[in-house]
Amino acid sequence: MKKLINNPEEVVKEMVTGLLYAYPTYLKKLDNVDVVVRKTSPVEGKVGLVSGGGSGHEPAHAGYVGKGMLDAACLGAVFTSPTPDQIYEAIKAVDGGKGVLLIIKNYTGDVMNFEMAKEMAEMDGIKVSEVIVNDDVAVENSTYTQGRRGIAGTVFVHKIAGAKAEEGAELEEVKEVAEKVIKNLRSMGMAFTPCTVPAAGKPSFTLDEDEIEIGIGIHGEPGTHREKIKSAKEIVAELMDKIVADLPFNDADEVALMVNGLGATPLSELFIANKEVNEYLVGKNINVYKTFVGEYMTSLEMSGFSITLLKLDEELKALLDASADTPAFKQL
Amino acid sequence: MKKLINNPEEVVKEMVTGLLYAYPTYLKKLDNVDVVVRKTSPVEGKVGLVSGGGSGHEPAHAGYVGKGMLDAACLGAVFTSPTPDQIYEAIKAVDGGKGVLLIIKNYTGDVMNFEMAKEMAEMDGIKVSEVIVNDDVAVENSTYTQGRRGIAGTVFVHKIAGAKAEEGAELEEVKEVAEKVIKNLRSMGMAFTPCTVPAAGKPSFTLDEDEIEIGIGIHGEPGTHREKIKSAKEIVAELMDKIVADLPFNDADEVALMVNGLGATPLSELFIANKEVNEYLVGKNINVYKTFVGEYMTSLEMSGFSITLLKLDEELKALLDASADTPAFKQL
Repeated sequence: MKKLINNPEEVVKEMVTGLLYAYPTYLKKLDNVDVVVRKTSPVEGKVGLVSGGGSGHEPAHAGYVGKGMLDAACLGAVFTSPTPDQIYEAIKAVDGGKGVLLIIKNYTGDVMNFEMAKEMAEMDGIKVSEVIVNDDVAVENSTYTQGRRGIAGTVFVHKIAGAKAEEGAELEEVKEVAEKVIKNLRSMGMAFTPCTVPAAGKPSFTLDEDEIEIGIGIHGEPGTHREKIKSAKEIVAELMDKIVADLPFNDADEVALMVNGLGATPLSELFIANKEVNEYLVGKNINVYKTFVGEYMTSLEMSGFSITLLKLDEELKALLDASADTPAFKQL
Repeated sequence: MKKLINNPEEVVKEMVTGLLYAYPTYLKKLDNVDVVVRKTSPVEGKVGLVSGGGSGHEPAHAGYVGKGMLDAACLGAVFTSPTPDQIYEAIKAVDGGKGVLLIIKNYTGDVMNFEMAKEMAEMDGIKVSEVIVNDDVAVENSTYTQGRRGIAGTVFVHKIAGAKAEEGAELEEVKEVAEKVIKNLRSMGMAFTPCTVPAAGKPSFTLDEDEIEIGIGIHGEPGTHREKIKSAKEIVAELMDKIVADLPFNDADEVALMVNGLGATPLSELFIANKEVNEYLVGKNINVYKTFVGEYMTSLEMSGFSITLLKLDEELKALLDASADTPAFKQL
């Protein structure tokens, strides 16, 4: 295992330290728990947004803590849900009197722990709501999930719910717009190579030299199938056929598009994929309103990518366009 | 070779197409050459900034074209200098009447071709100056270079010279501040794994399972030596010893810091490296004014990273803090 680490057991702790060194004006850490919150938390009169999940998906989620997006990110061990205790501390730290929305990716452990924390906070009299993101159309259930998995599309939920909360909206309104995003959000990914969880020390699965996995999850969970490597155009078409048919996205729809690298795929290749996605969408007369190409939700050093489409209306466009200032997502 | 591409011969062309699909409000492409310029080019009354180099270093350099940074990026084939013709077209396209500054990374081919283009543009009566970035302290000469190589520190030259040009400064003033950055800029990198140029189809070098290369260049050019893998703390100390001693950076200096991923190294590991760099600097009483952690100048899917320090004064701090709005570098 070739990794830029000191000790496999200390990666999350040391990563958080490095994160705080990098962004002292944006972030602070809560005492005794791996929870990162806005420097200014709690923001009075604003609904607090809490997300998080296993580590290994950086910049998700700590990179999205800041103005216009999240208030707190709970960092679990690599590919492991944060504990109820962590999440409970996060909720308390960011409640500015208007309640807290939990944005949960749909994994069994995450949902269980976030909901347990919600109950704990409610016993303290804090208003807490939750939304569960399940944008991955690849498989209906998976290794760690009942129902569909939550993957990179979650970043659009952070962005849009974050903008709504920043406007001073009430908890119910923020939840409602987050639900609207989730309802109109579809993603799917694939991988060329696996990744290695530091504490495991070896790849979580193997792929032959000419083999790819379609529909893989962000923890390397199996997708729909494996096949021989093929061109970017063919790979994109396979993912897009499934994504577009699912909602479905229709003629003249306007969408936000994310082409998300899983870790080791060069940006140049993500742009080639973006070309193919755009040409595919032109063929369907689906209009791209705004595009995001880069590493938004990774899977350590996995090589591969995912595509996310979000169907937009005027409200979602305005919230997507609102300014944001976080370590990993800035918009002027 | 497992890559998200269609045809190894078409990667740059298709990447540019994908780039333009992603950032239609930021960028436009010149006819018949792989040159990307600001949508608003030329900007009247502003010195034009032109950079570029081989492709494969994304987001460098096209990702830095926009307000507060570059006016044009010339995209060569992968790891190959752009042609004089390309650069000449870029200069003509961004000259807003105040002249053009070329920001060249020190590689023999790049320097030759940028200088040839400079002469061509001067014959047209355009005022052109140049600066050559040579921040890499690893080796004095290398495979493609007389003198030191230009690597990730180049992004600080783009940022600071870009901010100066945006203020309406004259060509000589922009050149002068770029020279000041270069004089105070030092970088060094290392690699865990090689990368594969698409047209070559196989890795440009090999490293054993437990072997790393110290001082490697961004095209996989040999560094100072190979050694057995060691901890992040030890790797950082080895790079920092050489960087800090070189300028030298001294007690009570203020610096900008960049921890730059070369392609496949997870952001979590870059943050661990950032922790080590900061702790090293605390030990030397060198103060970090601002930190950048991420993929700023890559080497396709190489695993590894580089560290850059820039010694700051009040002028450089103000220019570094100025707002910027480009596809890959945004600052509010």
